[in-house]
Amino acid sequence: MTGVGATRRITVVNPNTSDALTATITAAARAVAPVGTTLVGVHPDAGVPSVESHAEEAVAAVGVLQVVRDHDADTDAFVVACFGDTGVAAARELATGPVVGMTEAALQTACLVAHRFAVITLPPRTIAHTDRVVAALGLAHRCTVAAVDVAVLDLEDGAAAELAAFTREGRRLVADGAEAIVLGCAGLAELVEPLGRALGVPVIDGVAAAVGLAAGLLAQGLTTSTAGTYARIAHPGPVLTTTTTATAGEH
Amino acid sequence: MTGVGATRRITVVNPNTSDALTATITAAARAVAPVGTTLVGVHPDAGVPSVESHAEEAVAAVGVLQVVRDHDADTDAFVVACFGDTGVAAARELATGPVVGMTEAALQTACLVAHRFAVITLPPRTIAHTDRVVAALGLAHRCTVAAVDVAVLDLEDGAAAELAAFTREGRRLVADGAEAIVLGCAGLAELVEPLGRALGVPVIDGVAAAVGLAAGLLAQGLTTSTAGTYARIAHPGPVLTTTTTATAGEH
Amino acid sequence: MTGVGATRRITVVNPNTSDALTATITAAARAVAPVGTTLVGVHPDAGVPSVESHAEEAVAAVGVLQVVRDHDADTDAFVVACFGDTGVAAARELATGPVVGMTEAALQTACLVAHRFAVITLPPRTIAHTDRVVAALGLAHRCTVAAVDVAVLDLEDGAAAELAAFTREGRRLVADGAEAIVLGCAGLAELVEPLGRALGVPVIDGVAAAVGLAAGLLAQGLTTSTAGTYARIAHPGPVLTTTTTATAGEH
Amino acid sequence: MTGVGATRRITVVNPNTSDALTATITAAARAVAPVGTTLVGVHPDAGVPSVESHAEEAVAAVGVLQVVRDHDADTDAFVVACFGDTGVAAARELATGPVVGMTEAALQTACLVAHRFAVITLPPRTIAHTDRVVAALGLAHRCTVAAVDVAVLDLEDGAAAELAAFTREGRRLVADGAEAIVLGCAGLAELVEPLGRALGVPVIDGVAAAVGLAAGLLAQGLTTSTAGTYARIAHPGPVLTTTTTATAGEH
Amino acid sequence: MTGVGATRRITVVNPNTSDALTATITAAARAVAPVGTTLVGVHPDAGVPSVESHAEEAVAAVGVLQVVRDHDADTDAFVVACFGDTGVAAARELATGPVVGMTEAALQTACLVAHRFAVITLPPRTIAHTDRVVAALGLAHRCTVAAVDVAVLDLEDGAAAELAAFTREGRRLVADGAEAIVLGCAGLAELVEPLGRALGVPVIDGVAAAVGLAAGLLAQGLTTSTAGTYARIAHPGPVLTTTTTATAGEH
Amino acid sequence: MTGVGATRRITVVNPNTSDALTATITAAARAVAPVGTTLVGVHPDAGVPSVESHAEEAVAAVGVLQVVRDHDADTDAFVVACFGDTGVAAARELATGPVVGMTEAALQTACLVAHRFAVITLPPRTIAHTDRVVAALGLAHRCTVAAVDVAVLDLEDGAAAELAAFTREGRRLVADGAEAIVLGCAGLAELVEPLGRALGVPVIDGVAAAVGLAAGLLAQGLTTSTAGTYARIAHPGPVLTTTTTATAGEH
Repeated sequence: MTGVGATRRITVVNPNTSDALTATITAAARAVAPVGTTLVGVHPDAGVPSVESHAEEAVAAVGVLQVVRDHDADTDAFVVACFGDTGVAAARELATGPVVGMTEAALQTACLVAHRFAVITLPPRTIAHTDRVVAALGLAHRCTVAAVDVAVLDLEDGAAAELAAFTREGRRLVADGAEAIVLGCAGLAELVEPLGRALGVPVIDGVAAAVGLAAGLLAQGLTTSTAGTYARIAHPGPVLTTTTTATAGEH
Repeated sequence: MTGVGATRRITVVNPNTSDALTATITAAARAVAPVGTTLVGVHPDAGVPSVESHAEEAVAAVGVLQVVRDHDADTDAFVVACFGDTGVAAARELATGPVVGMTEAALQTACLVAHRFAVITLPPRTIAHTDRVVAALGLAHRCTVAAVDVAVLDLEDGAAAELAAFTREGRRLVADGAEAIVLGCAGLAELVEPLGRALGVPVIDGVAAAVGLAAGLLAQGLTTSTAGTYARIAHPGPVLTTTTTATAGEH
Repeated sequence: MTGVGATRRITVVNPNTSDALTATITAAARAVAPVGTTLVGVHPDAGVPSVESHAEEAVAAVGVLQVVRDHDADTDAFVVACFGDTGVAAARELATGPVVGMTEAALQTACLVAHRFAVITLPPRTIAHTDRVVAALGLAHRCTVAAVDVAVLDLEDGAAAELAAFTREGRRLVADGAEAIVLGCAGLAELVEPLGRALGVPVIDGVAAAVGLAAGLLAQGLTTSTAGTYARIAHPGPVLTTTTTATAGEH
Repeated sequence: MTGVGATRRITVVNPNTSDALTATITAAARAVAPVGTTLVGVHPDAGVPSVESHAEEAVAAVGVLQVVRDHDADTDAFVVACFGDTGVAAARELATGPVVGMTEAALQTACLVAHRFAVITLPPRTIAHTDRVVAALGLAHRCTVAAVDVAVLDLEDGAAAELAAFTREGRRLVADGAEAIVLGCAGLAELVEPLGRALGVPVIDGVAAAVGLAAGLLAQGLTTSTAGTYARIAHPGPVLTTTTTATAGEH
Repeated sequence: MTGVGATRRITVVNPNTSDALTATITAAARAVAPVGTTLVGVHPDAGVPSVESHAEEAVAAVGVLQVVRDHDADTDAFVVACFGDTGVAAARELATGPVVGMTEAALQTACLVAHRFAVITLPPRTIAHTDRVVAALGLAHRCTVAAVDVAVLDLEDGAAAELAAFTREGRRLVADGAEAIVLGCAGLAELVEPLGRALGVPVIDGVAAAVGLAAGLLAQGLTTSTAGTYARIAHPGPVLTTTTTATAGEH
Repeated sequence: MTGVGATRRITVVNPNTSDALTATITAAARAVAPVGTTLVGVHPDAGVPSVESHAEEAVAAVGVLQVVRDHDADTDAFVVACFGDTGVAAARELATGPVVGMTEAALQTACLVAHRFAVITLPPRTIAHTDRVVAALGLAHRCTVAAVDVAVLDLEDGAAAELAAFTREGRRLVADGAEAIVLGCAGLAELVEPLGRALGVPVIDGVAAAVGLAAGLLAQGLTTSTAGTYARIAHPGPVLTTTTTATAGEH
């Protein structure tokens, strides 16, 4: 859709299948979208209710690919709204426009406002997922990764209930030298303001950060390089079906 | 199946859907399996004919999970036979026994017989997939990653036709200081002997290397830690269906 | 000036004293500025005609501080338009709003559209200045730094004359695996389009990239952390005077 | 002895001169040796009773070379059973078959079953010896090195007495994110089972790990590369004599 | 002045404008100067009373350049006596003889007497300045950077009053594995002896360390390479004037 | 012997047993020794004629220990004159005064006069030995290691014959960005002047560099930390005997 009109469309992909989280994420994205940008939030039809493991991430990545295939024709840029940047590399091979992951966006943004910073992700077992993105960006010397013991689905009723846990962990990290805090999950935008006030340091929501980066890429006319790593390919074909979920539940 | 008898069973998972490559890989694995080990090769029912991109890797990873779910009950250890270690982290969360990727196995093995070494992978766009495993193991200071311009499916008729390309690239790498060569794709075992003879350095097939490591883990009674990153979970549910492949082909 | 009206003002600081380069840079910045943003380009009254050494960089950094002091009251965000990010850390301590360096902006942007990329800076002796920013961002594993033998002041008459040199070096870097090219100097925006066409990969101008990041930070309400490294301070006092330039010329 | 019969012989070299520790180590190695493998444990005639410093390590390394020279003719693979991998690089230059150090074996094995892990070595002054191997393998981003205040010779009467110290330190490391524990000394195999039970994570004995890797190398027909770093050489000649030990004792 | 006589002259540059600190630093430098070396301490005419921020560092760096220009004719080697090595890279481009920073000198010296060590700098906000030098030398794997909450100007009356704070922080660092302590500020030489006695580890003053390195470079006839990064240039011209300090004070 | 008189004694240890090389090295060291320093060159009684492999290095390290034991009483500081710093860590545990390796000294010195530099060592198989020291100092980002195909013993008749080989390799490295050259072997001091003239960059002899660092440590009253890694120990006892050399020759 590049250049077909004055309005740019950014599609925010929530890799899990939660309607509630998709709504929250989309609202957060819209709050920072520049004038002249249409922002649409979507999630895959089939997949997982939340991404808290490598196995769920594997399934969710295929869902991201389906969304990219289905929405590429009317999307100028994609934002992938899951900490760990589920499926982002694969999406870059399919999408016509640029693709920005919320994790890489949040980490890059933190570099601009702080020398050292920390991520608070959730639940603790996903620290390795964040480590992976930190390593891909080479930021281990500036970024500490910590976690609170909260499940992603606990956020469906809003993130406010988690403020105390984030404040406690954030205070520890700031005392240890963190000069900014990255919220390590989508759907936490409502913590930005109160947590920032409690800690006295910038608090970064990766979804908002990614929308800004995507808008900047569009303004510059930049999209993913087709030379080498992310050379364009067709969608691989197979998609997800949930008919066997029952069987899986018995596992 | 741990401990149920004197015989150990290692399941080698080929993440793509090629019968020919599965047969080649299984033969290579059997050639080095220790006495008392049964070795079975399988591939997912649905998926991609080869893994040469992040998008295909995403689809193949879900296939690996299905294979692990279906074979876990009668498997002592899994070997994942795809360069890039497709789905290995996710498989570790589902499998009862240990899971070894052919890439990590090959790189570790190279460290034991050479100070500096090189991977020859294929096709060139997948260099980033190997880089990812090299970085996860911290071996960038000892390992160079190169590629030959060959498609994975060209290997279905046997790898012998690629000997010239591997020899040419291998000579360049050895002249630059590589003391061993890692074959950067499954299905290349028949190159080990002639390429080693041509280059005068050890040549390593990751499938064989992984079988050795898996056997060693079984002998030690070791399996994946359930603390933290790879804590056990149930299969996420959704599986792949290929009914939409036709549509994808039109993409 | 934060929040005083509907319009945001981004001040682009050219650390050298060239009117011609300031005009070129400001035009490049305006071309990508989002709706509702006023973009002003300035340079210090005293300083150096170009920054091609650490000594000139030291002098130019003090000029950047003077500009920040003089323009902070009516600036929402600063962009520093010199490769090497002259004075950016110091400016963060003085400015009320965020400060973005064109080098960090260009490198971060390259990460979003390419796995591996290269900078072409100038002249060759300043490679170490770029290395410094690459290291601060931890990107040595993804970024190669090269140079063309061109003086900064040669760009005062426009960058078009340097297209051949950039194309030659760019072709070498793309053949070696670079998937995007970063222009390693301000004032090169007119090369973005023709060089991109010649090389077939994204070409990134750091000034445009920095404007996008600055706009994104403003949209998110983010500014430099006052905890630790960049805690606010008053301008140190001493400023530059050029009365002894004559003497220096005799040196 | 490669290929002379159906039976493989692995020689486990204890670099210190303790008969008791050699017996313990050999038993641990035999417990995991594959069918068809003969396992022999030896130690140098002259040397040091334990390796707890760089100076003792220097002496012990010469002893390892003597053992390799004396046993190469009837050995298919060597395992060096001392944390820090005393003399392993030198042994690779002399031995016909592969040489595996228990430290590199343990660290590689930990990578297969855990994302992050820790070594508990002894005594504390030898942490730098482990750091050296961790750095050679590039694993500092995944491995923490800690120590208990126990002397190597305290292990001559069995390791059981040290279970409490290892459990205490292990609990601290697991709480800090370690998902597996590497026993940082030979002769600790009897801790594997009780410590693993106490901590709930895999516990790895490097001697057992090294036997597995050596067996795998033999199955693959791999030995040390003779190109470059480990090119074969003759034994350098001088050997150790202990006649001056008395003098040293007076030092 | 190289080679004009039997006596070598080392000029120690204090980048701030404090007479008291210049006197303290010069005394510390003279205490270790080799026979036949004349040691002169100077500071810029205009600048900042202390360097505790990037902004002050930017101003002080220009002062260092002025000192180098004014003293190069009768100086064989320069030592820059400010933690963070203010202006050292720039000074190398102007000076005829070698230039040694006290930070790089202290860190290199610590490597010779300890495997792991720590810097105690001041005030805490300048930790990033030390990090920068640690990273430039690649020593993050051996060096921890900590800080005491003391202002540089508190040292004008002597460092003895800070012994308690340094001892407290030093004890913590030694307990955590530091085997030597680097004093992270000029003007602390009088702490070397009592702090070393209190902690039982070597304590290193970078000014003394730098004088030793400068003397060594002179003995070897070595000076800064003119190839590439530090190729000689003339002083850029503009110098500092303090006439606007009053205005700055009002800021 | 610390403090017993006005004169300091530095003992230069040549780890191999060549009288000719010891004489060359000692002369090079004396040429840069400060006034008031006595410089003595020694080599072990038993050992290897040259160090060109890990096995020879292992033997030579024990010889270094013997020399340190025999000369500690009348030595203020030791310099170990073998590229790779044979036995330096072990020597630090035995010596009363500081111990400086020629490799670490050369690399540190290069950092003071160049941003990027290169080592030319010999023969090629020892590149890994230099890599080890480069990694221990964390300098891989600034230092390239190359080699000429010359045997150490070829230097016994003087290094002049190797000037052409070093010039050829040096020119290649300077063209690739090296701003200084480190001579990667003891006994090459006579190349410093002609190679520097040929290449136009500083050329560094590690023996001279180490003498400067040792003198600086003595002036500061610094010696090896006894806390942790290098805590003092007695000589381990066993020493080398060459009676079995004949047997080794038959190997």
